[in-house]
Amino acid sequence: MIETAILLFSCPDAPGIVASLTNFIWHSGGNIMHSDQHSTNPTDGQFFIRLEFCFDPQQTNASFWEKGIGEIAARLQADAKLYYKSQTLRMGILVSKYDHCLVELLYQWSCKEIDVSIPFIISNHDDCKKIADQYRIPFHYLPITANNKQQQAETILNIARDTTDFLVLARYMQILSNEFLEKYNKDIINIHHSFLPSFIGANPYQQAYDRGVKIIGATAHYVTAELDEGPIIEQMVQHVSHQDSVDSLRRKGKNLEKLTLAKAVEEHAQHRIIRWKNKTIVFG
Amino acid sequence: MIETAILLFSCPDAPGIVASLTNFIWHSGGNIMHSDQHSTNPTDGQFFIRLEFCFDPQQTNASFWEKGIGEIAARLQADAKLYYKSQTLRMGILVSKYDHCLVELLYQWSCKEIDVSIPFIISNHDDCKKIADQYRIPFHYLPITANNKQQQAETILNIARDTTDFLVLARYMQILSNEFLEKYNKDIINIHHSFLPSFIGANPYQQAYDRGVKIIGATAHYVTAELDEGPIIEQMVQHVSHQDSVDSLRRKGKNLEKLTLAKAVEEHAQHRIIRWKNKTIVFG
Amino acid sequence: MIETAILLFSCPDAPGIVASLTNFIWHSGGNIMHSDQHSTNPTDGQFFIRLEFCFDPQQTNASFWEKGIGEIAARLQADAKLYYKSQTLRMGILVSKYDHCLVELLYQWSCKEIDVSIPFIISNHDDCKKIADQYRIPFHYLPITANNKQQQAETILNIARDTTDFLVLARYMQILSNEFLEKYNKDIINIHHSFLPSFIGANPYQQAYDRGVKIIGATAHYVTAELDEGPIIEQMVQHVSHQDSVDSLRRKGKNLEKLTLAKAVEEHAQHRIIRWKNKTIVFG
Amino acid sequence: MIETAILLFSCPDAPGIVASLTNFIWHSGGNIMHSDQHSTNPTDGQFFIRLEFCFDPQQTNASFWEKGIGEIAARLQADAKLYYKSQTLRMGILVSKYDHCLVELLYQWSCKEIDVSIPFIISNHDDCKKIADQYRIPFHYLPITANNKQQQAETILNIARDTTDFLVLARYMQILSNEFLEKYNKDIINIHHSFLPSFIGANPYQQAYDRGVKIIGATAHYVTAELDEGPIIEQMVQHVSHQDSVDSLRRKGKNLEKLTLAKAVEEHAQHRIIRWKNKTIVFG
Repeated sequence: MIETAILLFSCPDAPGIVASLTNFIWHSGGNIMHSDQHSTNPTDGQFFIRLEFCFDPQQTNASFWEKGIGEIAARLQADAKLYYKSQTLRMGILVSKYDHCLVELLYQWSCKEIDVSIPFIISNHDDCKKIADQYRIPFHYLPITANNKQQQAETILNIARDTTDFLVLARYMQILSNEFLEKYNKDIINIHHSFLPSFIGANPYQQAYDRGVKIIGATAHYVTAELDEGPIIEQMVQHVSHQDSVDSLRRKGKNLEKLTLAKAVEEHAQHRIIRWKNKTIVFG
Repeated sequence: MIETAILLFSCPDAPGIVASLTNFIWHSGGNIMHSDQHSTNPTDGQFFIRLEFCFDPQQTNASFWEKGIGEIAARLQADAKLYYKSQTLRMGILVSKYDHCLVELLYQWSCKEIDVSIPFIISNHDDCKKIADQYRIPFHYLPITANNKQQQAETILNIARDTTDFLVLARYMQILSNEFLEKYNKDIINIHHSFLPSFIGANPYQQAYDRGVKIIGATAHYVTAELDEGPIIEQMVQHVSHQDSVDSLRRKGKNLEKLTLAKAVEEHAQHRIIRWKNKTIVFG
Repeated sequence: MIETAILLFSCPDAPGIVASLTNFIWHSGGNIMHSDQHSTNPTDGQFFIRLEFCFDPQQTNASFWEKGIGEIAARLQADAKLYYKSQTLRMGILVSKYDHCLVELLYQWSCKEIDVSIPFIISNHDDCKKIADQYRIPFHYLPITANNKQQQAETILNIARDTTDFLVLARYMQILSNEFLEKYNKDIINIHHSFLPSFIGANPYQQAYDRGVKIIGATAHYVTAELDEGPIIEQMVQHVSHQDSVDSLRRKGKNLEKLTLAKAVEEHAQHRIIRWKNKTIVFG
Repeated sequence: MIETAILLFSCPDAPGIVASLTNFIWHSGGNIMHSDQHSTNPTDGQFFIRLEFCFDPQQTNASFWEKGIGEIAARLQADAKLYYKSQTLRMGILVSKYDHCLVELLYQWSCKEIDVSIPFIISNHDDCKKIADQYRIPFHYLPITANNKQQQAETILNIARDTTDFLVLARYMQILSNEFLEKYNKDIINIHHSFLPSFIGANPYQQAYDRGVKIIGATAHYVTAELDEGPIIEQMVQHVSHQDSVDSLRRKGKNLEKLTLAKAVEEHAQHRIIRWKNKTIVFG
């Protein structure tokens, strides 16, 4: 049984990086299937590569690869991560009342477009429980009041910390505190229902209507301490016109939101994304 | 010789507006070729219509139509404007160094896509003089220094006030003062090199690069006293990626800018746009 | 309780059509909410209008409106149809194995984006039964073999003829015979998984891959006797590249297909479409 | 002075190709700036790579690189081509009456977006002579009649064979014979005014209108002996509606055509394209 590894590797740019990596993989019996690289030269001189290679686990095991790549990474002062196709990521979902993003994620997951495991769905409303039940995914109903916000954040953390590799906010209408972000300390993907950085904050469709824009959008991004300011992963847009009401913008936006989020999640699950400063490199 | 009139008509919504207008035109021997209407009901109850009709000037002349439409407008408290296809608008162009928008406007004008007359091109640089010469359009070189800003604005005003129906800022890098806007008091169309309201102000491509957006855009809008806040006419966008530098964003943006501005100008010249509050109704 | 009527009206172009209709509606106490018109002048001189107006059923009932509109239609040799918002259309769905279009239709139907009733889902496979069950819609499993094709068509006809206003083929992989089309004699909407007229027939994604196109598409159209040649309602497209395999084209195409079909069905259900010769007028 | 080389390399896929190339370049003092690769595995097992690397011509000259790459290519049965940024390609332009593509190419060339030299413009009409004159490019007026077709083809061949690296047909309305293609034997880029493979042949906008499509397109492709069947380089599309006449489709299409052709030419001039069978790999 052949295993496929995905290497995400980033370091200060210098001659010979590709040669070092491809030589090591080649001489160790690995076969490179895909290779994508990017350099921010001449701006800030960082090099990024995604290598997908297969190997025979009976000849070379994971710790062999970890060690070899680790040595190259140490020499080049690189940030290196190795993933294996046989080990899918574990994705926790947080959702509120709007269910279109949740339904899209679960549908694409059910037909293997999004290849993850889903240990739970958490919501501050119970509307989506029936959807979770259809897919036989554990559903935690954690209503939030003025008084229990911090306590519920603790509960979410206890559920998610050891069972997930990343979280998805599928139109989760609560803001996660900096404390939560620090304690969870893994990737969290959010969908914002506007073409960021336009219309940060609440009611972006109302804002878009008031400004009279001719195009609306949706933005999937990683969550950081600054609201709606995290690294952008994917954006999609659609033409609108003076005929659109706030309500029709909202309805058209639903399709943008669900597809944008699903695409970003798929790319994250396939280890196609490297975060760098406040941006993303998304390999095709 | 048949004449074609275009009526832009806007009033508080009420029953019978369309019947009033179409009855009058029909009984006066006019033949409606196109009709587009829009209502902002239930939001703020304003009604808008664009009617294109032809008539025989030997039977009914312009003053007949002005009078008849005027009476209906007075009764309905409407804002009504009548234009005639035989009378093209007069468009003054202001430009700085970047010439791509100017070149596109002049090319589309030369092959009648944009049907206006162009009495002059004004610039604070002399780079574009040779382009003006090719098209035999008077070129006024009005360099701007720290000291002569207001004086040059007066000069522009003197040139433009009686010779133009509207102005186009084809990447004109000077801000027109409120005083200028009040004195000119006609439509001015600007192209902003971002997807407004994102990246207002200077260097939008640098801002877009720094934010790491995955889509860039251009916005044509009417100029108002608040910079980059006027009514949006047209927006176009294009996908970009981590591979794009500030320079490649700028180069890709040039095509967006020139096509967005040319489309907005074409629509304005065809009397397809009604301004309402801080928005536009753009009839197809 | 106010009722809303939608009139689709088409006749040879002539002066006074709009005045006739709007006068009648106005004098009968109707209030026009939306009006869209189109004329194929100067090509083939046909006029089309969609009027949405509300009225008080206690003052004027449906038969009053039918009669009045009918008289105008007779005078103008028009094809006129009146619909009422309170009477949603009945939509039968046919599907085979691929379920993405079905899932999208049912989701949008469940949140009222697509406002119809769904009396049944028919399939030649039983894969989608569980989806029908989730939504509590009667499911008819009608497997098709070499021998029972005509008989099953009769069965479908018996189920659909009196219970539906139109049919949707949500990736139904069987060709409906001309006999079926003639006997059913109502609208049938199909989704073809290519940018028609490119790649008619089987395996369009394989065809697209073989030709090396840089954009793929999906097309929703009305079914006619000539396969894949019926009037086009909606088309959507997406950029692809040399990196795409037949399989990734197919996966990307799924999103196009489901959204294109859902949009076409929504427009049909809202009576926004007039069929004319082999084309559609789709009012916005 | 540093030189930049671009290597386009294609061979049957096998382990170690990247390692071979990057090792050689690295050990020879070259510095890889960009690297893009693609493999058609598992379909037909071909590997493609584009490497952009810089070197010091005082240490290693072109013949050194030719020889070294040539040896690797011979060992791997590869097709390898080396280009140098300091040596721009020579592009001949053929045009008929429509000038929008020509004007766009020349504008983008004048501001260095398209980095080539242009030894001549050839036309079977003299309409575009004044444009050629503006840019001081030699213009050959070679009118074509029923009798002189073959003779004029010879004339074009004599002009183009030794002075150009590739030809661009910027809406050249004459079909080049197979004999011409064989004798010229270099790349020829054509713009077809439809979304190929839809609407092959004459009058594609009329065909699009007749079919009632909701999206139109333009296609830049390499010319082969089979008309409109050559490898596609770029495609662009635009939404249209029932409101569009043949004439408005043609006008909207002009913008698509000129941008699509300019983009394809830019990519060709930057050595981003590898032709493989009847397709293209276009590196980003």
